[in-house]
Amino acid sequence: MPSSTLNTVIEDLKGIVGERWVITQRELMESYLRDETPDPVRPKPAENLVLVKPSSTEEVSLILKIANDRRIPVFPVGGRTGLVGGSVPTEPGIILSLERMNRIEVDRDNLMAVAEAGATLGELIKAAEDAGLFFPPHPGDEGAQIGGLIATNAGGARAIKYGVMRNYVRGLEVVLPTSEVLWLGGKTLKNNVGYDLMQLIIGSEGTLCVITKAVIRLFPKSKYMVTLVIPFNKRSDALKSVPAILRSGVMPLAVEYVQINEVLEAARHLNESWPVQRGFAQLIIILDGMSQEEVLGACEEISKICEANNALDIFLAETSEEQSRILRIRSNIYTALKPNMVDILDVTVPPSRLEELMDEVDAIGSKYGVYLPAYGHAGDGNLHVHIMKDAGNEHVAKKIKDEIYEEAIRLGGTITGEHGLGKIRLENLQMVLSEKHLDLLRSIKRVFDPNNILNPRGL
Amino acid sequence: MPSSTLNTVIEDLKGIVGERWVITQRELMESYLRDETPDPVRPKPAENLVLVKPSSTEEVSLILKIANDRRIPVFPVGGRTGLVGGSVPTEPGIILSLERMNRIEVDRDNLMAVAEAGATLGELIKAAEDAGLFFPPHPGDEGAQIGGLIATNAGGARAIKYGVMRNYVRGLEVVLPTSEVLWLGGKTLKNNVGYDLMQLIIGSEGTLCVITKAVIRLFPKSKYMVTLVIPFNKRSDALKSVPAILRSGVMPLAVEYVQINEVLEAARHLNESWPVQRGFAQLIIILDGMSQEEVLGACEEISKICEANNALDIFLAETSEEQSRILRIRSNIYTALKPNMVDILDVTVPPSRLEELMDEVDAIGSKYGVYLPAYGHAGDGNLHVHIMKDAGNEHVAKKIKDEIYEEAIRLGGTITGEHGLGKIRLENLQMVLSEKHLDLLRSIKRVFDPNNILNPRGL
Repeated sequence: MPSSTLNTVIEDLKGIVGERWVITQRELMESYLRDETPDPVRPKPAENLVLVKPSSTEEVSLILKIANDRRIPVFPVGGRTGLVGGSVPTEPGIILSLERMNRIEVDRDNLMAVAEAGATLGELIKAAEDAGLFFPPHPGDEGAQIGGLIATNAGGARAIKYGVMRNYVRGLEVVLPTSEVLWLGGKTLKNNVGYDLMQLIIGSEGTLCVITKAVIRLFPKSKYMVTLVIPFNKRSDALKSVPAILRSGVMPLAVEYVQINEVLEAARHLNESWPVQRGFAQLIIILDGMSQEEVLGACEEISKICEANNALDIFLAETSEEQSRILRIRSNIYTALKPNMVDILDVTVPPSRLEELMDEVDAIGSKYGVYLPAYGHAGDGNLHVHIMKDAGNEHVAKKIKDEIYEEAIRLGGTITGEHGLGKIRLENLQMVLSEKHLDLLRSIKRVFDPNNILNPRGL
Repeated sequence: MPSSTLNTVIEDLKGIVGERWVITQRELMESYLRDETPDPVRPKPAENLVLVKPSSTEEVSLILKIANDRRIPVFPVGGRTGLVGGSVPTEPGIILSLERMNRIEVDRDNLMAVAEAGATLGELIKAAEDAGLFFPPHPGDEGAQIGGLIATNAGGARAIKYGVMRNYVRGLEVVLPTSEVLWLGGKTLKNNVGYDLMQLIIGSEGTLCVITKAVIRLFPKSKYMVTLVIPFNKRSDALKSVPAILRSGVMPLAVEYVQINEVLEAARHLNESWPVQRGFAQLIIILDGMSQEEVLGACEEISKICEANNALDIFLAETSEEQSRILRIRSNIYTALKPNMVDILDVTVPPSRLEELMDEVDAIGSKYGVYLPAYGHAGDGNLHVHIMKDAGNEHVAKKIKDEIYEEAIRLGGTITGEHGLGKIRLENLQMVLSEKHLDLLRSIKRVFDPNNILNPRGL
């Protein structure tokens, strides 16, 4: 697109949203040009861009109409906390931020929230709490926005008991690239009216439509919550405990696997202290329930299983400060490692194959003479392996990545469990999807977006 | 299609599946020509049909190749327990039954089953139990087949705690109408690789592809289960209790609402006795948990709430015989009413609006001078209203249906929560979906099935 084409719509955009909400100076849009993807693999933003901040669904629709009529790419962005460059505007066009659309209404009778797409995860968590309810998942940074969480089907640690974002979404208001507004689902818990476009849109990464509003299921506030940290000398003992726990009938909110190097590094990074200093491999388990007896009963069951698998200790955090500290340190492993990181992988295997995958990752690391820090959502079989700068050049990093992908696929898994494809995982898509499968995806894209204006990424 | 076209493929079909598995005599395919839809509204099957029973995915693919090449309609059928004529073969063509493909393998380490599409719900429940695990939902008749349960995204009573079929499906093997075999998802709990075709196919009612195999999530066996029957004099007291229960933190498997006339009629029909003889409106609540204390604690919480809302009694069934009897009587309301029934509706509203919907249904009944028996999944806001033969002619029945649909939509609900569109709900689709929405559905159908051979139904 010649830059003159974009310039001609700037006045129109100002007419729709008001002059104040159309930003053309590069220095004022810097933070919209990137997400949390590590620098070495993050795609480069295009040069000629305009940032627009609508305040209503009608404005979103008018913007898309102009863009579609003139074939101008539109890049919807949320909180830019993604890890695969999904929202980076890689072609000249319009960056569409819904940050001004951030209202949240909680419906206590139906245990649901109606949230505009620009509301943040932090705001949703707080709105639920203020209404005496609970939004269980915690998919990373609380600056993430509802639209982005849904567009990426975000997962995170607390996905064992109630599942990933998909399980929370009951209704969506969306604007198609051709400017029509659709309402899908609603405040209903069951809805079988035709192909479920809502489900298709969840996880479509801003390529099929712009999500403007969502109905999100909430849960009763847990009356009691504890966090366990359980150290083991051997990884196999830690990981062997996980299926046994899940089979026992205990239903934790989260079962995380970490290794001591990384949690200690994250604690140092935050200048905090990690509660358990011994044990190479550690499980972090979050449990909630209606009563202290129920939760402590579950803790006892877990202790029994882990002790039978040679756990060195069972550390129990009961105060909310201590539990928050543990979650904060765990959540900051990525931040602590990031300066020296080339890429963060998101391979996922059947939970029972996680140990095998980790052993293979170690073998690949040894082969290339590098350390590959890894930790993950053990209950989900979702492992985040980090390729660090000691891998040397880009070529080696890519070989390491490809070999890890091959192992994950061999074990019945896939290349991305929660981060999505974004723009940097497309090159590996043919490892997991057949040509016919890719054809179907391309045809669906064309059905929704005949002119390929919405977050174009060359699938 | 002229009948000669179909005749030319019969030899080919015999070549694929063996002579024994190609049935052309009408009297041997009678039960494949209908489902459980009440007679007065069930669509009529076509005359010229052939029934084929493949034994493998490869055979399914070969059959579809022939059908697609020669433009012959194919009607995949499961256990024919649907209530909207979805599997009725309404055009001359091939009836495809996967009943011979019924293997089930349970993977205890991953708490999953891999089931072929022709396995029945009853077989899956048993296989899970034999492995010490649990398949929680109970969407109606146990003769339903896995392929059909997924193709219709079946719901049922026990959908509160763990959700409808969609929430259990982790992987699918499907054959496209153009004969390619796709594997979607797998034994993974998280999978964000491109648009989620698996989610699109769940609930697509055999119109996008033929499901041949599924990976299904199982849960630990509940250690303790009870069923409560709670009578109230007034509907409003019963229904007011439901959101309060769900907000309390208790998470029942099921919360059912019934009225005394219908349960007593179902009990008479089965020659059994219903445990609670008083109270016009009754709640049936199924609770499970890890320990007796946990479950009895939940019962106490529920009792407190219901007593505050004028419950007349709290009846607690603890033995598995008594609990099965209650579930059996509840499940047979439909069967008991069926001989005098014109149609069973499946409207769904936000749970908090259920009382209003029921009052409106009563008002519509009074207006037309008919009794409209209704009961439903109260925790889901999913109400089954029955139009009986006392409505007189077809024209009146249709008016009653349309008015109930209008009320459900006015209350933020929809025309079908779990039964789906099948072939008899299409005529009301424009009440809930916009023309653009319908266009998207039609385009998606064309992407998967360019020659419209698979369960054609004229959307």
